[in-house]
Amino acid sequence: MREVYADHASTTRVAPEVLAAMEPSFGAAFGNPSSVHRRGEVAREAVEESRARVAALIGALPEEVVFTASGSEANNLALKGVAFGLGGAAAGTRAAPSRRRIVVSAIEHPSVLETARHLESRGFPLTIVPVGPDGLVEVERLREALGDDAALVSVMWVNNEVGTVQPVREIAAAAHTAGALVHCDAVQAAGKLPIAVNESGVDLLSLAGHKFGGPPGAAALFVKRRLRLVPLVHGGHQERSRRAGTENLPALAGLGAAAERAARRLAAAEPARLGLLGERLRAGLLAACPDTVLNGHSERRLPAIVNLCFRGVDGEAVLHELDRLGISVSTGSACSAASPGPSHVLTAMGLSPQDAHASVRFSLGEGNDDADVDWILKATPDAVAGLRALQPPLAASAPVVRRSG
Amino acid sequence: MREVYADHASTTRVAPEVLAAMEPSFGAAFGNPSSVHRRGEVAREAVEESRARVAALIGALPEEVVFTASGSEANNLALKGVAFGLGGAAAGTRAAPSRRRIVVSAIEHPSVLETARHLESRGFPLTIVPVGPDGLVEVERLREALGDDAALVSVMWVNNEVGTVQPVREIAAAAHTAGALVHCDAVQAAGKLPIAVNESGVDLLSLAGHKFGGPPGAAALFVKRRLRLVPLVHGGHQERSRRAGTENLPALAGLGAAAERAARRLAAAEPARLGLLGERLRAGLLAACPDTVLNGHSERRLPAIVNLCFRGVDGEAVLHELDRLGISVSTGSACSAASPGPSHVLTAMGLSPQDAHASVRFSLGEGNDDADVDWILKATPDAVAGLRALQPPLAASAPVVRRSG
Repeated sequence: MREVYADHASTTRVAPEVLAAMEPSFGAAFGNPSSVHRRGEVAREAVEESRARVAALIGALPEEVVFTASGSEANNLALKGVAFGLGGAAAGTRAAPSRRRIVVSAIEHPSVLETARHLESRGFPLTIVPVGPDGLVEVERLREALGDDAALVSVMWVNNEVGTVQPVREIAAAAHTAGALVHCDAVQAAGKLPIAVNESGVDLLSLAGHKFGGPPGAAALFVKRRLRLVPLVHGGHQERSRRAGTENLPALAGLGAAAERAARRLAAAEPARLGLLGERLRAGLLAACPDTVLNGHSERRLPAIVNLCFRGVDGEAVLHELDRLGISVSTGSACSAASPGPSHVLTAMGLSPQDAHASVRFSLGEGNDDADVDWILKATPDAVAGLRALQPPLAASAPVVRRSG
Repeated sequence: MREVYADHASTTRVAPEVLAAMEPSFGAAFGNPSSVHRRGEVAREAVEESRARVAALIGALPEEVVFTASGSEANNLALKGVAFGLGGAAAGTRAAPSRRRIVVSAIEHPSVLETARHLESRGFPLTIVPVGPDGLVEVERLREALGDDAALVSVMWVNNEVGTVQPVREIAAAAHTAGALVHCDAVQAAGKLPIAVNESGVDLLSLAGHKFGGPPGAAALFVKRRLRLVPLVHGGHQERSRRAGTENLPALAGLGAAAERAARRLAAAEPARLGLLGERLRAGLLAACPDTVLNGHSERRLPAIVNLCFRGVDGEAVLHELDRLGISVSTGSACSAASPGPSHVLTAMGLSPQDAHASVRFSLGEGNDDADVDWILKATPDAVAGLRALQPPLAASAPVVRRSG
C-alpha cells in the first residue's frame, strides 16, 4: 500500500542531512556545552553555529535567539517572560505597572491561549480578539482592544489548523502605536515562508525545528535586543541566563542544520512546488467531493495546509478511513488532540460544531509529490461518499473526541 | 594521547544501545505522539513504553512520571508547580493558603536555588538550611526551619559537586511530620544508586537521562499520585496536561532505553566497579598530592565523584593543564560555569574562597577503567606540583571565572 504522510503541520521527518549534523554529538563529539574543557568548547561552538543559522533564517542577530525545547515552551517563555517582567524595573518593556493587558487572537495555538488564560488568573487582564470567517484577525477590533493598558499582543503568523496568514506587520504596527510589545507564534511559518523579524516589526517570535525537517526537542524564541525576559526555567547561566538547563547539543545541531537547509530551499523552488501541490489538492478535492468547503482564507494562506469541511461527515471517521488507506491526516492539530470539544479555531471562524467536527486537515511537505496528491484525490472522495452513505448525520451534541501541533 | 573523560557528572556519552533505540524515530518511525493516525499511535506507544521503563527504575507508577526536557526543567516544574498551586483548591498539597514557605538546602543545584529565590520574590518565603563541613544537610536545623508554614522542602539526593549523599528518608519524614511536601533532585543519583520513591518517602523527584547514558533533552519528574501541579509549560494536553509541547519522541525513546539499561547495570556489578575505581582515584591522589584534601563526606558519598582541594593552586589552571593532557574534569558544575564567584556548594561547606577556587571535580562513569585512573594518577600530581611551582598563591580577591551541571 502506498503510504502518504499528509500531516506535516503536526511534525515532519528529520531530513537525512539534519540527522548527519546530529550524529557526531551522539558519538565521539558528545559534551556539555557549559563545560570549560576542550570537549565542552567544541560543543559550545556547535551550539553557537546553530544559533547563527537560526538567526540567519529569520534575519535576527545570534544573541537574539534563545533556544527552547519546543514551540510551546517558546510561546510560554514569550508570554510569561514579558508578563512576569512587568511592574518591576522591566527595561525594554516600555510598560508601566498599570500596563498589564495581554491581547491574543481567538485562533492562537493552545500554548498561547492557555498561557494567556493562566496569566489572566494571575492578574493580567486578557482580551481575545475575534477573527473573520476566513480566519483573519480583525485588525480594527484589535486596535479597539489595545486601549492604553495593553502590554503584549500575541498573534500567530500562520494558523496551524487552516493555514491563514495573518497581517503580522499591520498588527505589529498597531500594537506598537498603542505602546504594546508584539509576539508572533511563527511555528507554522518558519522554514516555509520568508521571515524577516525586523521588517515584520515583531519583538518576539517562536519557531520549532520539527516543523521543517529538524528534530523534535529543539525550538527557539527570537527576543529583540534589550528586551528583558523573566526566565521560564531558572537555574544555570545557559542561554545568557534566559533559559537554564544543559543545552541539547544534538537537537540544537539538528535545528541549525534544518534552518540552514530551509533557508536554501526557501530561496529555491520548494515553496512554489509545494504551492502548486497544495492548490492541486484543494481544487481536486473541492471538485470531487460534493458539499465540501475550504476552511480559511482562499488566498492569504499557506497553500500546503488544506483544511476542508466535508459537511455531514465525522471528520475523525474520514481520518481513520484515510489512515486505513495509508494516508495520514488530522482533524485540527496534534496539540488539541484529545480535546473533547470542536476545534476552537473553526468555531471562532463561525463554523457550527457539526461543521467543525466534519473538518479534516491535509498538510503537505517536502516528502510529498504529485503521485501522493493523486492518491489522496483518488481515495478521499470515495471515503467521504462511503461514510456519508453509512452514517447518520452528526448530532450537534455528539461526544466526539477530536485529535489532530 | 590517551583521552580520559572524567566529567561524567556534567554529561555522559549516549550508550550505543540507547542510540539504537532512538534511531527508528529519526527515520521511518517518525511521528507526533499526539496524532490520531497509526503513525501517531506507534509514536505514542513508544513514549508510554519509555514512561514505564523510567517508572520501573525508581519504583513509581507510569502515570506518576512527567517527561521534561531537562533536569533543570523538572526541578522548576516541581517547585513552581507546587508553589503556584497553593492558595487555591490545591488538592493533594495539604497546604492551607498560609502555608507557603519553601525550604531548601544551601548546596542545591542552581535550578532549585534560583527557582526558590524567584518564588521568594513572588511571595513565597524561603529558608535556606545550612550543611555541615562534610556537605550533609543538618537535619536538626531543617526541623527547626520547617515551623508550621512550610509547604515544600527540596533537598538533593546526591550533590553534583562533591557527591555527598543526603539522608533523604530522614528529611522526608521530618518534612511530612511538619505537613510539607518533599521534592528531591535526584539528577546525580538516578541510574547510579538504587532509588525507590516510596521507600524514600519523597513526593516529587527529578532525574535526567543524559547523566546515565541517555540523550540530552529527556528528563523526568516523578509526581506522586493525586498531587496537583500547575504546569510550567501551558498548552496542549500532552503529559496529562502537566507539560505541554510535542513530545520529543527520539529523546524519550532514548531515555527509556537508558533507564532500562541502568536498572540492569545497577543490579549487576557496575556500582561496585565504579566504587572501586573512585576509591582508587581518591586514595591515589590524596597520597600523591601534598596539601590536598577531599571535599565532602568521607563515606556518605557517591564514590565516582571525587572533589579535591589542591590548596594554593587555581583549580581552573589544573583543569586546563589536565585538559592539555587529554583529561576532562571540571571545577564545580557545568551549570555554574561562568559564575564569577567561588562554588556556593564549597563555601556553604565552610571552605574559604581560596580553597573553593583551588578545588577540582573528577567524576567517573561507565566509560572509565583502571587505565584511565592510572593516567589521572600519573598526570595530576605533576600538574599540581608544576602549577604550585609557577604561580603565586591565589589572592583572596582574584577574579577567577569558575566553570564546571
